[in-house]
Amino acid sequence: MSYIQNFNLYRNLVEEWISKRITVPDLPEKSLFEAMRYSLMAGGKRLRPVLSLAVCDMLEGNREDVMPFACAIEMIHAYSLIHDDLPCMDNDDFRRGKPTNHKVFGEAKAILAGDALLNTACEIMLDAVLADDKDTLGKAAAARIIMDAAGSAGMIAGQIIDLESEDAPISFEELCRMHSLKTGALIRASILSAARLCRADEKTWEALDRYGQYIGLAFQIKDDLLDCEGDAEVIGKSTGSDEKNHKSTYVTLLGIKKAKELLKETVEEAVKALKDLRNTDFLIKTAAYIAERER
Amino acid sequence: MSYIQNFNLYRNLVEEWISKRITVPDLPEKSLFEAMRYSLMAGGKRLRPVLSLAVCDMLEGNREDVMPFACAIEMIHAYSLIHDDLPCMDNDDFRRGKPTNHKVFGEAKAILAGDALLNTACEIMLDAVLADDKDTLGKAAAARIIMDAAGSAGMIAGQIIDLESEDAPISFEELCRMHSLKTGALIRASILSAARLCRADEKTWEALDRYGQYIGLAFQIKDDLLDCEGDAEVIGKSTGSDEKNHKSTYVTLLGIKKAKELLKETVEEAVKALKDLRNTDFLIKTAAYIAERER
Repeated sequence: MSYIQNFNLYRNLVEEWISKRITVPDLPEKSLFEAMRYSLMAGGKRLRPVLSLAVCDMLEGNREDVMPFACAIEMIHAYSLIHDDLPCMDNDDFRRGKPTNHKVFGEAKAILAGDALLNTACEIMLDAVLADDKDTLGKAAAARIIMDAAGSAGMIAGQIIDLESEDAPISFEELCRMHSLKTGALIRASILSAARLCRADEKTWEALDRYGQYIGLAFQIKDDLLDCEGDAEVIGKSTGSDEKNHKSTYVTLLGIKKAKELLKETVEEAVKALKDLRNTDFLIKTAAYIAERER
Repeated sequence: MSYIQNFNLYRNLVEEWISKRITVPDLPEKSLFEAMRYSLMAGGKRLRPVLSLAVCDMLEGNREDVMPFACAIEMIHAYSLIHDDLPCMDNDDFRRGKPTNHKVFGEAKAILAGDALLNTACEIMLDAVLADDKDTLGKAAAARIIMDAAGSAGMIAGQIIDLESEDAPISFEELCRMHSLKTGALIRASILSAARLCRADEKTWEALDRYGQYIGLAFQIKDDLLDCEGDAEVIGKSTGSDEKNHKSTYVTLLGIKKAKELLKETVEEAVKALKDLRNTDFLIKTAAYIAERER
């Protein structure tokens, strides 16, 4: 199976699982579920849950054990995009080529759909913890890794720094910390939660942790390059927004050439982190994919 | 100890625990924690965590075991108020006599502070699950009860119905269902999560469940009466908003006199539900307090 076939297999499994879990009941509150599904099923790369499943396969774990946590991470990612796109935040009208959630359902429902996705992510993980009495503490620990990455010590802290950095340039170090929180934390958690569920030993854990941190950084450098050089039609949202919002990015701080060099080095470091592990083919190719993607 | 002294004791324990847990770090994202603390420490009755602790004492459980879950519920309540007060929702400028979160911190931070409170509530419960290997499944089950009540099968569903019922009158049955989701579910969960943690037997569980449903209903009828008859200065927010927003309430559907009769009957049913249990003095007085409160 080629890399892209393997990636698509993982993605299809994730989408199938999510689609079965989030249905639209025939109840007065059905529009809530429609709004949740709208953003959940709007495409997207599914990078985070794909990473979880890839780590699971690499460690020869059980996909069924990892899947609820992988999909919970995707729901957290989806909720963060809905709230991020709101008029009082980034005020984006399009995401993945479709109108953003609040453009379709209105701001109030978009906020509540985001809240409900975060809540559902927790419900799904608790269901997994309660499903049987096998490895209960391990599953709770995986949930804790994910919630830590999503919250005030992770993603949300990064969003606050991002908000405050508009029109107020920040240093390279501050930019790195902001992105390691805003984007990096959840990417890293998708890897480490799967490693925890599959009982990775300490050496494997540490190697995966380093890999996760490097690909998180690579992901963001590439995002900044795409915002500056990318094709808005392919990306599915407007480009040039960083410049418009006077935001510090890897491109504004380093210039395009140096940003591309840093991206290349970062991918090399990610690959190097895996050198003592086995079955790393998919993860190595994913590091390259992150740097080469067009959206 | 008088009822009110006992209530205040519980409330002080809750506020102390929350205040220690949510601190403001000296980091670039400190304003996130300031916004979280602003709403968390802005007073409030603390009815939900007080109920959890009261059920714990009634069942002779360990307060330390119940406290994280009680405070998680209060954080979920606080987040729901922040999001509810936003301009695109109820657009309220005051809450408990103070400017609402978005009036102080702006909409973007208010949304993120709400998100972070929900996330933190989950983190706190998972920490409790992971704290030791005693009753791990019981603690995870208590967390599940709470998240179920807070999410798309509970509070958030109620908020969606509430949103859609503006300018569109709903029936008495629809109103009851809406409130049992929007307000009742979390009140009930504060009782049942504590009952689960303290290993209540089936008879006790069912009695507490009935009690919780009746006081949830009583709470909402009284809220509607306060919005119509209450003193805005005492309540700390503007009154008459239901009429202004053309909302169906127990008062608009039944009239003041019948709403008061229903409130009295509901409190009687709550008390009756407890008749075969012991140590119910505090819970009985809480049912009366809910009907008599002025804010």
